[in-house]
Amino acid sequence: MKEIRVGIVGATGMVGQNYITLLRNHPWFKITFLSASSKSAGKSYREAVDLRWLMKSPLEKQVADLIVFDAEDVDAARKNCDLIFSAVEMEKGKVALLEEKFAEAGLPVISNNSAHRSTKDVPMIIPEVNADHMKIIPIQQKNRGWKNGFIAVKPNCSIQSYMTPLFALMNSGYEIEKLIVTTLQAVSGAGYPGVPSLDIVDNIIPLIRGEEEKTEKEPMKIFGSISENQIILNEKIKISAHCNRVGVTDGHTACVSVKFKNQVPDTREIIHLWENFKSYPQDKKLPFAPEHPIIYNYEENRPQPLKDRDSDKGMAVTVGRLRSCNVFDYRFVGLSHNTIRGAAGGAILVAELAVSQGYI
Amino acid sequence: MKEIRVGIVGATGMVGQNYITLLRNHPWFKITFLSASSKSAGKSYREAVDLRWLMKSPLEKQVADLIVFDAEDVDAARKNCDLIFSAVEMEKGKVALLEEKFAEAGLPVISNNSAHRSTKDVPMIIPEVNADHMKIIPIQQKNRGWKNGFIAVKPNCSIQSYMTPLFALMNSGYEIEKLIVTTLQAVSGAGYPGVPSLDIVDNIIPLIRGEEEKTEKEPMKIFGSISENQIILNEKIKISAHCNRVGVTDGHTACVSVKFKNQVPDTREIIHLWENFKSYPQDKKLPFAPEHPIIYNYEENRPQPLKDRDSDKGMAVTVGRLRSCNVFDYRFVGLSHNTIRGAAGGAILVAELAVSQGYI
Amino acid sequence: MKEIRVGIVGATGMVGQNYITLLRNHPWFKITFLSASSKSAGKSYREAVDLRWLMKSPLEKQVADLIVFDAEDVDAARKNCDLIFSAVEMEKGKVALLEEKFAEAGLPVISNNSAHRSTKDVPMIIPEVNADHMKIIPIQQKNRGWKNGFIAVKPNCSIQSYMTPLFALMNSGYEIEKLIVTTLQAVSGAGYPGVPSLDIVDNIIPLIRGEEEKTEKEPMKIFGSISENQIILNEKIKISAHCNRVGVTDGHTACVSVKFKNQVPDTREIIHLWENFKSYPQDKKLPFAPEHPIIYNYEENRPQPLKDRDSDKGMAVTVGRLRSCNVFDYRFVGLSHNTIRGAAGGAILVAELAVSQGYI
Amino acid sequence: MKEIRVGIVGATGMVGQNYITLLRNHPWFKITFLSASSKSAGKSYREAVDLRWLMKSPLEKQVADLIVFDAEDVDAARKNCDLIFSAVEMEKGKVALLEEKFAEAGLPVISNNSAHRSTKDVPMIIPEVNADHMKIIPIQQKNRGWKNGFIAVKPNCSIQSYMTPLFALMNSGYEIEKLIVTTLQAVSGAGYPGVPSLDIVDNIIPLIRGEEEKTEKEPMKIFGSISENQIILNEKIKISAHCNRVGVTDGHTACVSVKFKNQVPDTREIIHLWENFKSYPQDKKLPFAPEHPIIYNYEENRPQPLKDRDSDKGMAVTVGRLRSCNVFDYRFVGLSHNTIRGAAGGAILVAELAVSQGYI
Repeated sequence: MKEIRVGIVGATGMVGQNYITLLRNHPWFKITFLSASSKSAGKSYREAVDLRWLMKSPLEKQVADLIVFDAEDVDAARKNCDLIFSAVEMEKGKVALLEEKFAEAGLPVISNNSAHRSTKDVPMIIPEVNADHMKIIPIQQKNRGWKNGFIAVKPNCSIQSYMTPLFALMNSGYEIEKLIVTTLQAVSGAGYPGVPSLDIVDNIIPLIRGEEEKTEKEPMKIFGSISENQIILNEKIKISAHCNRVGVTDGHTACVSVKFKNQVPDTREIIHLWENFKSYPQDKKLPFAPEHPIIYNYEENRPQPLKDRDSDKGMAVTVGRLRSCNVFDYRFVGLSHNTIRGAAGGAILVAELAVSQGYI
Repeated sequence: MKEIRVGIVGATGMVGQNYITLLRNHPWFKITFLSASSKSAGKSYREAVDLRWLMKSPLEKQVADLIVFDAEDVDAARKNCDLIFSAVEMEKGKVALLEEKFAEAGLPVISNNSAHRSTKDVPMIIPEVNADHMKIIPIQQKNRGWKNGFIAVKPNCSIQSYMTPLFALMNSGYEIEKLIVTTLQAVSGAGYPGVPSLDIVDNIIPLIRGEEEKTEKEPMKIFGSISENQIILNEKIKISAHCNRVGVTDGHTACVSVKFKNQVPDTREIIHLWENFKSYPQDKKLPFAPEHPIIYNYEENRPQPLKDRDSDKGMAVTVGRLRSCNVFDYRFVGLSHNTIRGAAGGAILVAELAVSQGYI
Repeated sequence: MKEIRVGIVGATGMVGQNYITLLRNHPWFKITFLSASSKSAGKSYREAVDLRWLMKSPLEKQVADLIVFDAEDVDAARKNCDLIFSAVEMEKGKVALLEEKFAEAGLPVISNNSAHRSTKDVPMIIPEVNADHMKIIPIQQKNRGWKNGFIAVKPNCSIQSYMTPLFALMNSGYEIEKLIVTTLQAVSGAGYPGVPSLDIVDNIIPLIRGEEEKTEKEPMKIFGSISENQIILNEKIKISAHCNRVGVTDGHTACVSVKFKNQVPDTREIIHLWENFKSYPQDKKLPFAPEHPIIYNYEENRPQPLKDRDSDKGMAVTVGRLRSCNVFDYRFVGLSHNTIRGAAGGAILVAELAVSQGYI
Repeated sequence: MKEIRVGIVGATGMVGQNYITLLRNHPWFKITFLSASSKSAGKSYREAVDLRWLMKSPLEKQVADLIVFDAEDVDAARKNCDLIFSAVEMEKGKVALLEEKFAEAGLPVISNNSAHRSTKDVPMIIPEVNADHMKIIPIQQKNRGWKNGFIAVKPNCSIQSYMTPLFALMNSGYEIEKLIVTTLQAVSGAGYPGVPSLDIVDNIIPLIRGEEEKTEKEPMKIFGSISENQIILNEKIKISAHCNRVGVTDGHTACVSVKFKNQVPDTREIIHLWENFKSYPQDKKLPFAPEHPIIYNYEENRPQPLKDRDSDKGMAVTVGRLRSCNVFDYRFVGLSHNTIRGAAGGAILVAELAVSQGYI
C-alpha cells in the first residue's frame, strides 16, 4: 500500500500534538504538512511549539524539522499532503469555511472541530457505530461540486464512553428510549492552558459550557440514517446530561441510567453483547481499531480513569457496574480516553475507515 | 438556661473530633464526657488521640485533659453527661445495642451511626424537613419502657444537598415522582485513614459501598409520616443513585434530575421557594440553624465544593444550575458540607431541636 | 480615630479581590475607590469582575456598587481616597511610574508589585522584622519632592515563612551565614488563571520564573540598614533557593537548612525565641497583627499547608521539624499563607504600621 | 540461555505486584513461585490478591493461576525457583532472618527490604554505580558457609534520582564534598493503602519517617569500597536531606545543591558527562538497562514527574535545571520513577547483573 501524506491543520495546539504523537510509526499515514496560526508560519515546528510541547513522549526529529505553514494556506496543503486532520481553533464560522476550502481543493478533511457536526451532508462518525454513514460522502461531493475532497467529523469526547455500548445493544434489537447521564470529565478535555488549577484542586466544576447540549444532540445524528441525500436525525432517544469537570488528567467517566423501549435484555445478555461486540474496524483490522471496542470490567469499583483509560492504547471503551436502576431499567459506568478515543485517535480511525472504504 | 453536659461516644475518630471542634463555645452544650475503644480508656483525650488530631483548629485544653472512658461503659456516661452524641464505629449490631443501653440508662442519644436508621420507632431527622417526626419519641420511650432516654438519628451525608431543596417544593404542594441523582463525594466522607491517595490522585472511584442503597431508602423514611405508633415510609418517590468518590477534601455535590407528579412549578417559583424557605430551626433560632437553609447561587458554574461548602458555617445547602431536563422536568446541582451539615453539625442541630421541643 | 479612605488599584485581579475580602469590617480602613484596566473603567465593580469573583465569601454590596476607574486615573484616586493599595498588573516600568504618580499626588502607596522592590529609598517591609525601615520615608519624600505621598512595598510571598523565624534568632544575637532553602509553593501564588491544571494534577513543576532570584535578593534588603539616606543591603547572608510549584491551593512551605556564623543556639533556645517573639505590630496591637507571629508546631509531621495556613487568620507563620543538619547547623520547615501574610494581608499590616507611625 | 525460575516473596503487596507486571515477557526470568502471608497460602494468586490488584495492566493468567505459598516456606521456594525477589513486609529482624534462610537454602536473594542494607557483607547495588560491589558475594558466601545462595539489596527509592548523576561526575575525577537535598516524593512510595487522601489532597506532608536517615546513610555504602572482606563506607561525602510527600502518584523529584571538593567542572562538562554516561548494564546490554541511564532535559521547567517518570520504561533518571548555586557550587533537579527504577525495576536489573557476572 502506498503511504498517504498527512497534514495537520492546527498542529501546535494540544489536539495537534496528540495527532503528531499518535501518528508516529503509523503504517499508512506519514505527516508531511503542518499548519497553525500566522504567527507560527515560516518557523520550524520545533520553534513554533517551543516550550508548549505537552506530550510525554519527546517530539521526533522528522516532524520537529517540518516548516509550519499558515492554517489558511490551502494551496500549500494541497501540494504537500493527501489528507487533512483539522484541529484548528478559530471562530466556528471561519473553521467551517476553511474546511470547505480544503475539501474543494481536493483534500479529504477529518475534523475534530464542532463546526460541521450538524451539517446535514457531513457524516459524524464513530467507526464501530455508523461506518455506513460514510456513504453520504459521494452525495456531499455531488452537492458541493467537490471531486476528491470531502469533510467527515468525529463527535464530542464526552459521549464516547457509552455510545458504542448502547449501539451494541441497539444493534441486537433492543431499542433505547431514554438516558440520563452524568459525566465526570478530565481537564485535558479543555485543552491547554484550559482549566486553571485554582478551579480544580480540591474542587469540581459542575459546568462545561456547551457540553450538555452536544451530548444531547450528537447521538441523534450518529444513530440517524441516510435518507433523501442527507442524514436524518434519530429523534426517538431522549438524553439529558449533567457534565462536570473533575481533577483527572485524562479519561471521561459517565454514569448512565438507561430505559429501554420495549424489550429489556437481562444483565447477562448485555454483558455478553458488550464483550462480543465487533464491528467494521475490527473486521477490517484497521490499524487503530481496538481488538475489543468494549471491555467489561467485573470488579465492583471499576472503570476508573487512572486504571482503565489506556485500555487497548486508549481506543477501547471500558464499562462496569451494570446493575438495575430504581427508576429506569439499568445503570452502568462507562469510561473512555478523551484525547485518544475521544479526539485524535478517534479521528485517525475515521481516516482509516475512509481509506478502507476507498474514499481516500 | 442551664448548661447541658454532653458526652461523645467514639470521641477519637474523625466524626468525634468534628463534634469536639464544632461544640467549642456552644451556648447550650458543654463536653464533659468522652469515650472510645478500650485501648484509649483511662488515657487523657490528648494522649488517646495522639498524632491523630485531624482538625485544623487546635485541640482545646479543657477537652484535651478529659479522661477517656471505655465506649461500653454506660454507667460512666450516665454519671457524667445528660446527652450522648454517638459517633462510635463498631459492628452494626453492637452499635444498635449500645445505643439502646444508653437510652435505657436515661440518656438521649443522637447518633451518626446507621445502625438505627431503619428502626421503625427511631426518628431520622433533618430538622428543616421533618422536625415533627420527633413526636415518635414518647412512643419509642413507651414501646421500650425508657424514661428520659431515647434514640434519634441523622441520615446519610450523601442526600443532604437535595433533601431540603426538594422538601421546600413538596411543602408548597409540588409532589415529586422520580429522581435520578449522581453524587461526587468528598474523601472526608470515608473517615480517616479512609480513601488511599493512590486511589484518588488523578482518579475518581465510581463506587461507595452501601451509599446508593442508603440514598434510595432513607428519603422514604424522612418524607414519611407517623401513623399507628411508627414512622410509615413514603414509597411514592422513586430514587436511583450513582455515588462516586472524587478528590475533594470536603463537600458532597449532587447532580439531580427530578420529575414532578402533577403540577410542575416554573423556574422562578422554584428559586423563590428555595430562597424563602425557612423552617422550625430558623423560627426557633436554634444556635446551629443556618439563617437561610437553602442558598441559590446564580453563577452559571456553581455550586462548587471549594467555594460553597462553608456557607453559613457549613450548615447551609447551596443549589444552582436549575434548568429544564430533556427527560424529566428539571435538573439542578446541590452541595452540602458532608462533615458539618452531613454529620456532626447536622446531629448537633437535631440535639438542639430536641432541647427546643422539650425532649431533653 | 478617623476612618481612612482606601483605594485599590488593580481591583479586579486576584490580589485586588483578596484586599476587598480582607478589608471587610476593617476598623480603620474603608474601601472608597477601585480602579482596574481601561476595559473595566466606568462599570460597577460587580459588573467589572463578573464571573471572575474568585473568593469564597460573597462580594459585599457596598463594594460591588462602586464604579471602577481607570488604573491610570491618578486624579480620581487623589479625590476619592487617602491611601492606595497597588495590586496592578502591568509591565514593570509602567507600574513603577504609576506608583510614583500616585505618591506625587500626595497618596501613600503600599504595593504588592515588585517594580519598586529594589529602589534604594523605598522600604520593603515585613512589619515584625524591619518596621524601622519606614524611617526612609521622609528621605524618600525629600529626595523626590513629595509631600504626603510615598511608596512602601511588601516582599515576595515565597520568603515569608522563614524571614521572621530567622529574624527572631538574629535579633537575639545569633548571626546567620548561609541558607539553602527549597520551597513548595501553592498555585494561588501564580494568580488566576495562573497555573494550568494539566501542569499540576499528578505533577510538580520545579520552576517558578524569577522566584529564586527574588528569594536570594530580597532578604538582603529586608535585613539591611538605613545609612546615607538609603537602605544598604546586608550582603553577609548567602541564600540559595529551589522554588517548586505543587498542587496546593494556598500556603507556601519552605524546607530550610541554615548555618550560623559564630554562636549556634541550641534547639530549646531556638524554639523559646520563636514562641516568645513579639515585635512592633504586636506591641502596638495593630489590627492585622497576629498575636504570635511565629507558631512552633511540635507534631512531627507539621507544618502542613492544609492544616496550618490559616493560623491566626493567615497572618502567623508556622514552623516545625527543627532538627540538626548534617551539613549546616539546623534544618526546619516553615509555612505561611501566601495570599494573606504573603500578599494582601501583609500589605495591610504595612499600611497599619504606617498609620501607627504617623506616616499616613 | 536457560530460563531462570523466579520466586517473589511478598507477592501480594504493591512491590510484589510491580515485579509481576515488570517481569511479564522477561527474556531470562519466568515467575514460577509466589509466596505471601499465611492467610494467602494455599489460594491461587488471583484469589489471594482479590480486589487488591493495583496495577494498570491486567493480571496475566499464567501468574494468576499459581498457588501462593507461605512466605516462610523456604523449602517450597527451594524446590520451585532458582532466584528470589524479596518484597516481603514483616518486622525487620524477621525479614533479615528469612532472607538468610533462603540464601542458606542455596537461593540468590535480591531484596527490596531495608533489613540487610547495612549488613557489611551484603552489597547494596545501583548497577550503573557499583556493579563491582558484587565481588563481596563470594566473601559473603564464605563468611556464612552458603553455597550458591547469597543476598544483594537495592537502596532506597528516594536517592536514585541523583546517585547516578553524581557518580557520573565522581567517575570522571570530580570529588563531591557536600550535598543538601530536598525531595518531593510520590505517594506510591508509601505502598497501598499508604498515604490517606485526606493527608495529601490540597496538601503536602513534610515528613517521611526514616527516609532522611536512609538518604544520608545509604550513599556512603554505595560509594564505598571493598576492603578486608567487607564494604567500607565512604564517609567523605556529607548529605543532609529534607523528605516531603506530595500529591503525585509516581516519580520522586529531588532538588539538589552540591559542593565539590577540589576541582569544579563547568556546566557544559557536567551535561556532557551525564549525557554520555554508560556503565556495566549498558555495556552488557542487560534487558532492563536503560539505553541512557541519565537523560538531561534542557527545557527550563523539567524534569516533571508526570512527563518524565516513564523515560526509557521508567529505568532512566532525568535531570535538568543545572545552574550555579549561591551557597554551594551547583544546583539541579533529578527525577526517577520510584516504583520502577527505585524498586522492582531496579532490583530486576541487580538480578540481571548477578546473572551476567555469573553469580546466578
